[in-house]
Amino acid sequence: MPDRIDINCDMGESFGAYKLGRDQEVMDYISSANIACGWHAGDSMVMEQTVRLAKEKGVAVGAHPGYPDLMGFGRRRMDLTLNEIENYLLYQMGALYAFAKAHGLPLQHVKVHGALGNLAFIDLEVSKAIGRAVLRFSRDIILVVYSGTIMAQAAKEVGVRFVEEVYADRVYNPDGTLQPRKIPGSVIHDAEKAARHALTMVREGYVVAHNGTKVRVKPESICVHGDTPSAVAILQKIREELRKASVPVKPMGQ
Amino acid sequence: MPDRIDINCDMGESFGAYKLGRDQEVMDYISSANIACGWHAGDSMVMEQTVRLAKEKGVAVGAHPGYPDLMGFGRRRMDLTLNEIENYLLYQMGALYAFAKAHGLPLQHVKVHGALGNLAFIDLEVSKAIGRAVLRFSRDIILVVYSGTIMAQAAKEVGVRFVEEVYADRVYNPDGTLQPRKIPGSVIHDAEKAARHALTMVREGYVVAHNGTKVRVKPESICVHGDTPSAVAILQKIREELRKASVPVKPMGQ
Amino acid sequence: MPDRIDINCDMGESFGAYKLGRDQEVMDYISSANIACGWHAGDSMVMEQTVRLAKEKGVAVGAHPGYPDLMGFGRRRMDLTLNEIENYLLYQMGALYAFAKAHGLPLQHVKVHGALGNLAFIDLEVSKAIGRAVLRFSRDIILVVYSGTIMAQAAKEVGVRFVEEVYADRVYNPDGTLQPRKIPGSVIHDAEKAARHALTMVREGYVVAHNGTKVRVKPESICVHGDTPSAVAILQKIREELRKASVPVKPMGQ
Amino acid sequence: MPDRIDINCDMGESFGAYKLGRDQEVMDYISSANIACGWHAGDSMVMEQTVRLAKEKGVAVGAHPGYPDLMGFGRRRMDLTLNEIENYLLYQMGALYAFAKAHGLPLQHVKVHGALGNLAFIDLEVSKAIGRAVLRFSRDIILVVYSGTIMAQAAKEVGVRFVEEVYADRVYNPDGTLQPRKIPGSVIHDAEKAARHALTMVREGYVVAHNGTKVRVKPESICVHGDTPSAVAILQKIREELRKASVPVKPMGQ
Repeated sequence: MPDRIDINCDMGESFGAYKLGRDQEVMDYISSANIACGWHAGDSMVMEQTVRLAKEKGVAVGAHPGYPDLMGFGRRRMDLTLNEIENYLLYQMGALYAFAKAHGLPLQHVKVHGALGNLAFIDLEVSKAIGRAVLRFSRDIILVVYSGTIMAQAAKEVGVRFVEEVYADRVYNPDGTLQPRKIPGSVIHDAEKAARHALTMVREGYVVAHNGTKVRVKPESICVHGDTPSAVAILQKIREELRKASVPVKPMGQ
Repeated sequence: MPDRIDINCDMGESFGAYKLGRDQEVMDYISSANIACGWHAGDSMVMEQTVRLAKEKGVAVGAHPGYPDLMGFGRRRMDLTLNEIENYLLYQMGALYAFAKAHGLPLQHVKVHGALGNLAFIDLEVSKAIGRAVLRFSRDIILVVYSGTIMAQAAKEVGVRFVEEVYADRVYNPDGTLQPRKIPGSVIHDAEKAARHALTMVREGYVVAHNGTKVRVKPESICVHGDTPSAVAILQKIREELRKASVPVKPMGQ
Repeated sequence: MPDRIDINCDMGESFGAYKLGRDQEVMDYISSANIACGWHAGDSMVMEQTVRLAKEKGVAVGAHPGYPDLMGFGRRRMDLTLNEIENYLLYQMGALYAFAKAHGLPLQHVKVHGALGNLAFIDLEVSKAIGRAVLRFSRDIILVVYSGTIMAQAAKEVGVRFVEEVYADRVYNPDGTLQPRKIPGSVIHDAEKAARHALTMVREGYVVAHNGTKVRVKPESICVHGDTPSAVAILQKIREELRKASVPVKPMGQ
Repeated sequence: MPDRIDINCDMGESFGAYKLGRDQEVMDYISSANIACGWHAGDSMVMEQTVRLAKEKGVAVGAHPGYPDLMGFGRRRMDLTLNEIENYLLYQMGALYAFAKAHGLPLQHVKVHGALGNLAFIDLEVSKAIGRAVLRFSRDIILVVYSGTIMAQAAKEVGVRFVEEVYADRVYNPDGTLQPRKIPGSVIHDAEKAARHALTMVREGYVVAHNGTKVRVKPESICVHGDTPSAVAILQKIREELRKASVPVKPMGQ
């Protein structure tokens, strides 16, 4: 059993007149907010408001950069060079950093969004480019990696600070990646079940994949998707279980 | 006669496959580069290359934010709220800061681009919003203001550090604003003439407007437009004259 | 009392992952859909789906072009030349035309969105540029103008086909323009009241402005805003009243 | 020897303040212009000017749609669904159609740009989606396919009108695709050599690939890249050779 844990969630995904997610409610239950940086979601106004909200609620802020593809919400792979990935991430980190700085908060972490994140799962060079981008910005910033994937290995090789995360609301493949959303049953909507799923990982250090295989994970942060309708219920349940288990919830950087 | 002066120029205005300006040549003659931040011009790759080039040449870097209007190159006024202006500037400053940080350079200054800059000339509230944006990001960053306009007054009121600039290659109105480009003769293409124009301002502290009026200016930085065909010739001539006058050229922040 | 009337509503304002409006429900009650063209709202997928839906429901389709400002939802004035306005409208009309054509529907009409529409209210030259854009695309396409404004005059001068519309859910100024949304009470949310408001205009040919002045209007089409929470209730009530008054609802182009 | 041939070139790739290509000069030597539609290059103003120029020079106009990636000039593959490809093409075709219509010209053809074009070479389903998009817009519009690739097969299956093109300035692979630009020597810069290369294909109906293999081609249109520095020289030489061979140059749709 770890002596503390972080809970992270994607925040600030609204854009202009378009509202997405329930940031106001979700922010009460998390310790780290991954804030969209205006490329696949979010805009300057939303970023400012989300950082402000996070500060009010005592939540640490991180950048959630993605592909330059608002129309596709960053969920479509683009054929970028490693150099482009590095610079696109630097740009987005800097943009969010400005709002954190304006509110007197540090930029705690970086977590990559959508199809770029999925690519990082399976492509060591991409994972390393992501790590280098974070490192070039600051040695203090934590890269959030999907536990049990090559992202952790890449982070180590590059020398960037990192934290491993697990998914409360997603079914796992035997290789530690997530079963794709399009396969029915891949998203866990039931709050009890998702909380149990998360707590097992926290307690035991492994997750049972869809085929029964036990996959080792190192849950330093639990990710819950804010756009799942039951997100708030899942978060409440997880926090209740963590309280019972006497595992305090704290921002990953503390 | 001042004991030193800065020379600034807009840099990094290329975008993707589109090349603009002669950054490589111009960078040899300036001390401060105003680098576009990806909204009206520039992109992440161009920003990285421009900061790298500036570093190689010993030129200090600043952000050159503008309207979110690549199609109009930031030259068309948009009806933004003061809050939008503030946040749009923070975003762009942060984005450029990331590349400066990655190269171990400070973000020395901010200079506003195009139609937003022209609006700041004549709208005190806009000027103050710009000043607040810079101040919220950092007390160390210098706002470049057009000498003799309300921008200096706004900067003082807001409490942001600022430096006044004059234009070597532009004819002045009696109120200290620039005669619009569309009026023939407003842009000084002749290198000798532009250098003399600049040196008179530096030496005397005033500029002779198109109608003969003397307008007081405080030339702490000389701006030359990099897209003027004779930009390099003008810069060479100005540096030659400054050398003769024993006025060293140094980045405004030193 | 007219022998028929059109009801129009803005449709297809979703974008990528962002959903806006209740097109599915609203489409049952209108005869003409103003479909966003991807600049201030809408995207290619949304345009295709909206045209398809309109066809299923027997609703005529028109283009709803706006400023190139997705971040501001086309609600912020941009300082464009008349030539830019003309070409920006042609582009967007053509884009929507493609989806209408693919579904075997004509492009019935054009209605300008947001801040560009508001500018057309008060600027004859802008109104004429809009008219010219429509005319250049096709003599058959109808321009929707706000009844009682200079837009009708401009349309006549330019020689473009046009239809006058009135607003069911908005309070009028004595000069025939709409009282701005930011003034409390400017939007009529009560379905009964909005229907009565619309029917009075249809029956009497005038609207009572907020100060009691009667303003002459020529209601050939009634506009209801789909994003008003009570939009469906308002539409139901208007159709009920029109049925009682034996005024059939038909697309403006029929 | 064919009794006539078309020469096509990409045109209208400037964007806002950014100028690209030498459309004015090139337009004198071609019979069909592939005009960018504002997604990977071009904007409404450029589209209008390019269609106007084509009309003046008696050149037929076609749409040159690409990925929604201005930053990457449409040269980076994006992971789109077939449905997205279809709708993205419809949108862009319609946009260009509006300018053709405004100038009284038909939309003669469609040729897909960059990475999307390269994908169509090797992916039958993508090629068919492209064909369907053209067909849905109009049975009269010609799809330009790379001669000897599966694009022609796809066009036949879908039932869209098509024309096969060959490249004057590019070295071929034995499978009929183009040797990638990054391999040195893949682009033929010498005007004499490029003209000879094109004329051999026109005369003999085959091209000699880089390894000596003869690949059958059916040159109904010759493509020259306008951004090759020697483009004008190549075009002049090709026209001279075609004149000698008494093969008239005519738009593909005539």
